[in-house]
Amino acid sequence: MARWLVILAGGRGERFWPLSRAMHPKQFLSLMGEYSMIRNTRERVRPLIDAAHTWVVTGRDYVGKVEENLPDVPKTQILGEPVGRNTAPSIAWAAFAVARRDPEGVMLVLPSDHLIQREDRFRELVEVALSAAEARGGFYTFGIVPTHAETGYGYIEWDGEVLADFGSGPLRVRRFIEKPPQELAEAMVASGRYYWNSGMFAFRVQEFIAAVEQWLPEVAAGMAAVVEDPASLEAVFAQLPSISVDHGIMEKVREVYVIPADIGWDDVGTFSALARHLPRNDDQNAARGHAVFVDAQNVTAISDGPVVAFIGVKDLVVVATRDAVLILSPDRAQEVRKVVQALKEGQHDHLL
Amino acid sequence: MARWLVILAGGRGERFWPLSRAMHPKQFLSLMGEYSMIRNTRERVRPLIDAAHTWVVTGRDYVGKVEENLPDVPKTQILGEPVGRNTAPSIAWAAFAVARRDPEGVMLVLPSDHLIQREDRFRELVEVALSAAEARGGFYTFGIVPTHAETGYGYIEWDGEVLADFGSGPLRVRRFIEKPPQELAEAMVASGRYYWNSGMFAFRVQEFIAAVEQWLPEVAAGMAAVVEDPASLEAVFAQLPSISVDHGIMEKVREVYVIPADIGWDDVGTFSALARHLPRNDDQNAARGHAVFVDAQNVTAISDGPVVAFIGVKDLVVVATRDAVLILSPDRAQEVRKVVQALKEGQHDHLL
Repeated sequence: MARWLVILAGGRGERFWPLSRAMHPKQFLSLMGEYSMIRNTRERVRPLIDAAHTWVVTGRDYVGKVEENLPDVPKTQILGEPVGRNTAPSIAWAAFAVARRDPEGVMLVLPSDHLIQREDRFRELVEVALSAAEARGGFYTFGIVPTHAETGYGYIEWDGEVLADFGSGPLRVRRFIEKPPQELAEAMVASGRYYWNSGMFAFRVQEFIAAVEQWLPEVAAGMAAVVEDPASLEAVFAQLPSISVDHGIMEKVREVYVIPADIGWDDVGTFSALARHLPRNDDQNAARGHAVFVDAQNVTAISDGPVVAFIGVKDLVVVATRDAVLILSPDRAQEVRKVVQALKEGQHDHLL
Repeated sequence: MARWLVILAGGRGERFWPLSRAMHPKQFLSLMGEYSMIRNTRERVRPLIDAAHTWVVTGRDYVGKVEENLPDVPKTQILGEPVGRNTAPSIAWAAFAVARRDPEGVMLVLPSDHLIQREDRFRELVEVALSAAEARGGFYTFGIVPTHAETGYGYIEWDGEVLADFGSGPLRVRRFIEKPPQELAEAMVASGRYYWNSGMFAFRVQEFIAAVEQWLPEVAAGMAAVVEDPASLEAVFAQLPSISVDHGIMEKVREVYVIPADIGWDDVGTFSALARHLPRNDDQNAARGHAVFVDAQNVTAISDGPVVAFIGVKDLVVVATRDAVLILSPDRAQEVRKVVQALKEGQHDHLL
């Protein structure tokens, strides 16, 4: 009957190259404030769920980094996937593992690399979601009120019904919409009935497992095998489908609710998103790390070491590390992968 | 009666920060091609003057670097100044030192950090200058035909007289003009009687020493003392005036000639000057070092290590090192010292 936290930390984070690297993806970066994204994720809900009830699902290569970042999480609760199969297998693995200890428990699932500025409000809403899951079951998502017609997010549509008796009133979900084209995004935002899917969930462990057994039986069988016999891990993952929990489970199950979440959320998906959250001087320049601005305007410097100096330039985002520097127009941040691709093709894998 | 080469290598090169550093100024950088500027300087005249007749005057801290770059130059002929006092004392020191061995010799004086693209032509003109000095004495300068009204150079005015019997015909000099204001520069360029002062000279050793004794007696006395008693070096330099050879000697002596030098010269005084000499691709991008261009235009990347990647930007010069990155508008390259100054004021001397 306990509450369990599952942090998803399998991302590769190529959009944050060169700050992120194959062996050091975004969730381990200290993009804002003192701590890494994953540590911030964990600290944010520490008042609600302790370390003994925390699980992390990550890539096998990143287990050591998770241990460094979350030293109080039991090492047996850091699950290292031999290969990434998207979120449905990750969450299912954690659910089957939790179920062996506490089949009556509820689970809070959080991505490890998002920004949430209003943490008190976030904890209030987590409390709503977990309480509702405990009291009556169902699947709870956290929906962000859209501020613009973003085509890079999934959307959740409210069907008009409100679940009473639970604080901010979870709203019943009609359907999930994957990343929409621009026109559809605009229509959804204008209608007021859609929310951004933040990728955070709460539900009863048993109810989730039942859904996996019904809708993704291969995944269920595989994860049941893995928790019984860890030696099967490699063979199981090799055969798993790659599928998101949204598409594989949430779109299928009944009793899905969205909790409108006014929590200052950002998935910080690009350097431009990061740049928006940095404090700016009078010339609209911002720096994370050591920067020198000589007659610069609307420039963002992000450095994990080198000093970055600007003279007479404007409208740039610059990311500097000891062995790689990225200079981009703020509206082109979604194209960072093109550079990563070029380096792969040039066999400069040591830079990735 | 020999020919001697004196290379001036005392520059600090702050305009090339962060590529140049206090301990690694411009003359030791490989800005173009494989070798350092100072090595290129020396190789350029190797067919004319051998290592045994080569001297270098540099800062005391740079003696080791000169030895690395010019390993065949006798170490006793690398003169390390305890403090920089501009070019007149530097050349005087070399002249007094040469005079002890070969008072009848002639000297060719070259800055160590200039680009000369037409090396055969340059050697022809050096031959003219040295032959004229040997045959009849006089001071010979190399004058670059101005291509624009540059305000950052000194100018040399031709008085209308031509010295016959010496190949390209040295022209008699009326006067030297220090860095002029824009209007004057434009008038001089339009007149066709002015040349840029390239800072290269040829003359008889004894004639130069006589001029120093006449016009800069303090310098002459000091250098005579230094070559007699090296232990006096520190005390002598501490009291020397700081004065250029142009101002202190060339403007004063009679019998000064300028040899029009169509040699593809550039003092490469700024990163923009360097950028002009790099080959460009179809999008006008240029790289020295490893760069990746994604939809970039008119961008110059200069790196001594880090890969530099660009996405959707234009009109930039970027200089990258492991601990410092400079990003500037191509028309602002003369302001690099502002960054150096800001770092000094911020007590970040380890970056300088």
